[in-house]
Amino acid sequence: KSMRKGVVRATVSIEKESPEAERPETFLRGVDEAHSSSSVRARFEKMIREAQDSVCAALEAVDGGAKFKEDVWSRPGGGGGISRVLQDGVVWEKAGVNVSVVYGVMPPDAYRAAKGAPTDQKPVPVPFFAAGISSVLHPKNPFAPTLHFNYRYFETDAPKDAPGAPRQWWFGGGTDLTPAYIFEEDVKHFHSVQKSACDKFDPTFYPRFKKWCDDYFYIKHRGERRGLGGIFFDDLNDYDQEMLLSFATECSNSVIPAYIPIIEKRKDLPFTEHQKAWQQLRRGRYVEFNLVYDRGTTFGLKTGGRIESILVSLPLTARWEYDHKPEEGSEEWKLLDACINPKEWI
Amino acid sequence: KSMRKGVVRATVSIEKESPEAERPETFLRGVDEAHSSSSVRARFEKMIREAQDSVCAALEAVDGGAKFKEDVWSRPGGGGGISRVLQDGVVWEKAGVNVSVVYGVMPPDAYRAAKGAPTDQKPVPVPFFAAGISSVLHPKNPFAPTLHFNYRYFETDAPKDAPGAPRQWWFGGGTDLTPAYIFEEDVKHFHSVQKSACDKFDPTFYPRFKKWCDDYFYIKHRGERRGLGGIFFDDLNDYDQEMLLSFATECSNSVIPAYIPIIEKRKDLPFTEHQKAWQQLRRGRYVEFNLVYDRGTTFGLKTGGRIESILVSLPLTARWEYDHKPEEGSEEWKLLDACINPKEWI
Repeated sequence: KSMRKGVVRATVSIEKESPEAERPETFLRGVDEAHSSSSVRARFEKMIREAQDSVCAALEAVDGGAKFKEDVWSRPGGGGGISRVLQDGVVWEKAGVNVSVVYGVMPPDAYRAAKGAPTDQKPVPVPFFAAGISSVLHPKNPFAPTLHFNYRYFETDAPKDAPGAPRQWWFGGGTDLTPAYIFEEDVKHFHSVQKSACDKFDPTFYPRFKKWCDDYFYIKHRGERRGLGGIFFDDLNDYDQEMLLSFATECSNSVIPAYIPIIEKRKDLPFTEHQKAWQQLRRGRYVEFNLVYDRGTTFGLKTGGRIESILVSLPLTARWEYDHKPEEGSEEWKLLDACINPKEWI
Repeated sequence: KSMRKGVVRATVSIEKESPEAERPETFLRGVDEAHSSSSVRARFEKMIREAQDSVCAALEAVDGGAKFKEDVWSRPGGGGGISRVLQDGVVWEKAGVNVSVVYGVMPPDAYRAAKGAPTDQKPVPVPFFAAGISSVLHPKNPFAPTLHFNYRYFETDAPKDAPGAPRQWWFGGGTDLTPAYIFEEDVKHFHSVQKSACDKFDPTFYPRFKKWCDDYFYIKHRGERRGLGGIFFDDLNDYDQEMLLSFATECSNSVIPAYIPIIEKRKDLPFTEHQKAWQQLRRGRYVEFNLVYDRGTTFGLKTGGRIESILVSLPLTARWEYDHKPEEGSEEWKLLDACINPKEWI
């Protein structure tokens, strides 16, 4: 399945966005909007926009100072997004929470490769719909971990020249934690909340998506993961669609209880310059992963997505020291070891 | 030609390196060493090692404090390198000057694509040789520009099963300047020295390699270049081999006169926090270019090159602000404008 999506991603490109003065009620096109009470598209958009509101409110409350700056944008052919960024706050160095709704067209070859359509069928470009919430939260305190989460829904239109052919749809997403220092109780708490969300739907989800997360956030050239994982899944369509919509909703609603208690505990701990420099080095690794490997980022850069929304995932500051090796047995070494050898936390 | 090299690069992989206690006289294999007085391989290695010595001596003299740390390494099948890094000095935030000699094997398909061998010939893996000097110098002062230079030589062995078939060889390289602020006299001086080096060999070189440089160091997703250019060329083999060896030598010898006078003038200028933050933002763009587009970096990460040597090009510190836009007409805006619209400096 990954190969297929790779093909799609390499050949799709999208229109230039323009700023909007106000948030629209919905980014759906008129024809989708008419079905807004029932369609998965509409319910997914509603879900991610509510998640954006509640996560931003929780982050502002924790910061106690800075507020999110909002940018609303749209594309001429339909769709758009809301980017919210809080920069240089009391607690947050940089926090971005974005939602977007994209209408695009997939070249016929990519679609045929994706769904294995018979080659005697006339090839026509296939319209698609994609919506998602994406967020990266970088705190200032080196003992407070970075969080990333992203939940997305993808759908193709039913091909017009083949009335019987089904729509294709997929869900993807995940939530993962990237500390510079390990507090075992924090990591256990974080993974437990992920497991609880998974277990409500399928007992195989947590072990499977935990491993998928460890495999995905792998910085190959370093032989290490960018952090301590969580859950990750992609191209998921072999379950009931309603069940997966509920699952994505549950995961989005789990972000605050999984993360905010950790931040509350760590945000005011005293730290040294040495500890701050180590956090900055790990931020450098975060940059390496996102620019070299992350599918969303590399896809976005290639297809002409909104650059500032895509790269808001990068930290405010990062650092690269030549040949840095933490002292064996040190706290820095323990973190690195857990990034090299992923652990079962619960 | 770029396509061909692309094919080669995607399919080559190299052995793991190990550290060496001392610099060897040469990294050439015995059979190459025996021809050391005459072969281009041997003369190129000698040239880049002398260039490494003289550039490092000049950089240490300017710094007046910190010294280069040296790492020597080798690969079991032959070849190796010397990495020299000066970090957190008086003048230099991070300065890396590396030489390497690589023996590798190109899969037959890549070689056939490269040289257009007749398809009725038995496909065999083709051994290749590559040697180069590569350097990135990041000063602390935001008015002192970053410099990058790299000169390399690539050669395939004559295929054993086709005695008449010729060796293939190419030269590549360039020197380019990346300031955070424009001092027109500095940029003119830098480009004039590049032009003088070029003009000694061919009057078409400077205009052609200046444009090639502007085209190469393009951050596509930003629509801007990483800096103010210089010269760049790749896969060059349609000139006399001796002439190109002399040209690469002349270019390497031009690094000090092109760059050091600029550093001397700017290294002690007073600056504000605002100016330092702008330099850090431009360093972020440097990271984006190197990790997303630079052929040497992306090739090195994929093939298992020495990671610390490859990523020494990344700055000690970098910064990403959401949606940063310099004020129109400001000094920051002028730099950005020159990165978006490359200028003729001389």
